[in-house]
Amino acid sequence: MSPFTGSAPRTPDWQHIRVAVEEGVATVTLDRPDKLNALTFGAYADLRDLLAELSRDKSVRALVLGGEGRGFCSGGDVDEIIGATLGMDTAQLLDFNRMTGQVVRAIRECPFPVIAAVHGVAAGAGAVLALAADFRVADPSARFAFLFTRVGLSGGDMGAAYLLPRVVGLGHATRILMLGDPVRAPEAERIGLISELTDEGRAPEAAQALARRLADGPALAYAQTKALLTSELDMPLAAAVELDAATQALLMTGEDYKEFHAAFTDKRPPKWQGR
Amino acid sequence: MSPFTGSAPRTPDWQHIRVAVEEGVATVTLDRPDKLNALTFGAYADLRDLLAELSRDKSVRALVLGGEGRGFCSGGDVDEIIGATLGMDTAQLLDFNRMTGQVVRAIRECPFPVIAAVHGVAAGAGAVLALAADFRVADPSARFAFLFTRVGLSGGDMGAAYLLPRVVGLGHATRILMLGDPVRAPEAERIGLISELTDEGRAPEAAQALARRLADGPALAYAQTKALLTSELDMPLAAAVELDAATQALLMTGEDYKEFHAAFTDKRPPKWQGR
Amino acid sequence: MSPFTGSAPRTPDWQHIRVAVEEGVATVTLDRPDKLNALTFGAYADLRDLLAELSRDKSVRALVLGGEGRGFCSGGDVDEIIGATLGMDTAQLLDFNRMTGQVVRAIRECPFPVIAAVHGVAAGAGAVLALAADFRVADPSARFAFLFTRVGLSGGDMGAAYLLPRVVGLGHATRILMLGDPVRAPEAERIGLISELTDEGRAPEAAQALARRLADGPALAYAQTKALLTSELDMPLAAAVELDAATQALLMTGEDYKEFHAAFTDKRPPKWQGR
Repeated sequence: MSPFTGSAPRTPDWQHIRVAVEEGVATVTLDRPDKLNALTFGAYADLRDLLAELSRDKSVRALVLGGEGRGFCSGGDVDEIIGATLGMDTAQLLDFNRMTGQVVRAIRECPFPVIAAVHGVAAGAGAVLALAADFRVADPSARFAFLFTRVGLSGGDMGAAYLLPRVVGLGHATRILMLGDPVRAPEAERIGLISELTDEGRAPEAAQALARRLADGPALAYAQTKALLTSELDMPLAAAVELDAATQALLMTGEDYKEFHAAFTDKRPPKWQGR
Repeated sequence: MSPFTGSAPRTPDWQHIRVAVEEGVATVTLDRPDKLNALTFGAYADLRDLLAELSRDKSVRALVLGGEGRGFCSGGDVDEIIGATLGMDTAQLLDFNRMTGQVVRAIRECPFPVIAAVHGVAAGAGAVLALAADFRVADPSARFAFLFTRVGLSGGDMGAAYLLPRVVGLGHATRILMLGDPVRAPEAERIGLISELTDEGRAPEAAQALARRLADGPALAYAQTKALLTSELDMPLAAAVELDAATQALLMTGEDYKEFHAAFTDKRPPKWQGR
Repeated sequence: MSPFTGSAPRTPDWQHIRVAVEEGVATVTLDRPDKLNALTFGAYADLRDLLAELSRDKSVRALVLGGEGRGFCSGGDVDEIIGATLGMDTAQLLDFNRMTGQVVRAIRECPFPVIAAVHGVAAGAGAVLALAADFRVADPSARFAFLFTRVGLSGGDMGAAYLLPRVVGLGHATRILMLGDPVRAPEAERIGLISELTDEGRAPEAAQALARRLADGPALAYAQTKALLTSELDMPLAAAVELDAATQALLMTGEDYKEFHAAFTDKRPPKWQGR
């Protein structure tokens, strides 16, 4: 746990998503398999609030986001979300769309790597959740569908028009966001949208193995790597180089750097502490 | 037509390019086949002015840019442009180079998708026009040659040093702009410079089919997707997420979003209005 | 030589790297083959100072950076650098990390193309030096290992978290910088990290051939292309287009542009002067 806590209690029970934390690895499962894990207002809010709580909890060092059943996530529920938004006023619409964007920002800005374990469909908001993750571990059944224009909305939802060009380039991103056509696993791998392609049905297991490796490793080094990757997309070169220098100077005072040198000298594997 | 018009007349006759508009699709053809569609001062000015006029004309929902004859466009005419610029003074040189850049900005900023239909050579300014388009539909004869350094000029012409790294990555872009070597269709497809590779000779037809699909679809959603893709290249993540939220909240008050939900409920295809 | 020189003498002898300049091509060789060319404090400082001196020397038009022996560069020396930094205070750590970043900035900002000739291992700081170059000419033995997290440090070292996503996209860059796993030549070529893949053992020769082509070509055009590629990563589209216009207007007053037109008219190859 972080040494800095105040009055705020922790949420005792996540009602709209399934959450488990085991030895530094948080596993978050979208768990409405009969609806292909379609997202509800409650699920978005839980993801936003959970990521904020876990970001203050130093024991969490990696997070796996997956879906129960036949696919990863079919996006916002057509009835519970699209139907409901049709009755909302201006302020409510803005509140809702800001909330979904806050989930994406929380994924990009939390101090641990996020691994999306993708099988089957990752559609709409589900595709953007996977896109916002640091790693997309996917099996051959994975299908990313940024289908926002197909419901009459902008392809730039929840930061997708920012993130996708930076992952696959502007040409592919334009085609994918504008047309909303599904991107199947072979294309997704070819254009750099998949981090690790697994055998059929093995995405959850491979995502857990990666999370375990990250949680057992030099967690502070991983956290800073993620923070720099996220923030240097928005920085000029000179500022990025200066930020790297300050970050590296800081980490050179850390325990793990000392431990690497001691282990190297002793010809043994390092025992990482993540600090 | 836009409800907001003033005193400015529309250009009755485009003398340096061929223009046709049919049911929401504008088709612009570079039409000097005996010169491989080399661009002249008049052609640049017409492209700049045409895009400004079409951007105010709500009936245009997609634009196809192609070339008559053996290729797409061989770039600025060696005699009519390069020769003429050698006699220009400082202010004239700046005016000319600003005009060519304005064509690229107009392609990126107009409120409808632009599809370049590329066959044969797309060289110099012709390569940049194709690069600035949202889609590059090309056949196997396509050859992109950013040959500016080969005439003693900077490879960063008309925004190419901004756009190409964002489409194909900095490594490929450096090689291509610095050396000016042609990029043939297989490489262009591999590095993400081609959006859709067609059979030999079928680029114009495939570009028209794509334009038709876009013009018949939710045009306002496409327009906003394009605007976000263009502007979020220049924005930090937090601002992009906020822009997405405001845009999506706005489109959720639109006709097409309501229509999607009604059609989905009625189990029929939506009738898009583009508003 | 630049017409603008002052009191500062040139360094008579580079003690930590091997430097040769021949007809416009500077060749810099990391030359500690028994240590896989591990970098020392002196080598970093020499690279920083050499690039500053060469940037003021108009006779240098291309630079090749390579390594003697079995590989390109194994990065910072475990004993001489990692060991030494463990005894440094805060200010010393910042000075060291700023110096390494200054080498990367110097590579990106010097007015001539830099070609990394890579064979065998390019690890740690060695991988970032190659990444910062304009061209990576590599043979099939090349292996890029951004292994910073493996020593307990941030993957964003010397600008790597800025540069790598812009070369290979954010997805690949996250995986590579976070995990520190080696990227072998076939993957490096596929994701755009290699500019030119040569036959086994031929990277130095191919790098020299490319440097020769660049040095004999329109050097001012190449220098401006590089400057625009570097600076337009950090600029919005409108500013980039304006910078391109001003740059191109300037080069249109240059000798090489006139020479191209004269040579084209005379049907002979141009004689480039680089001005």
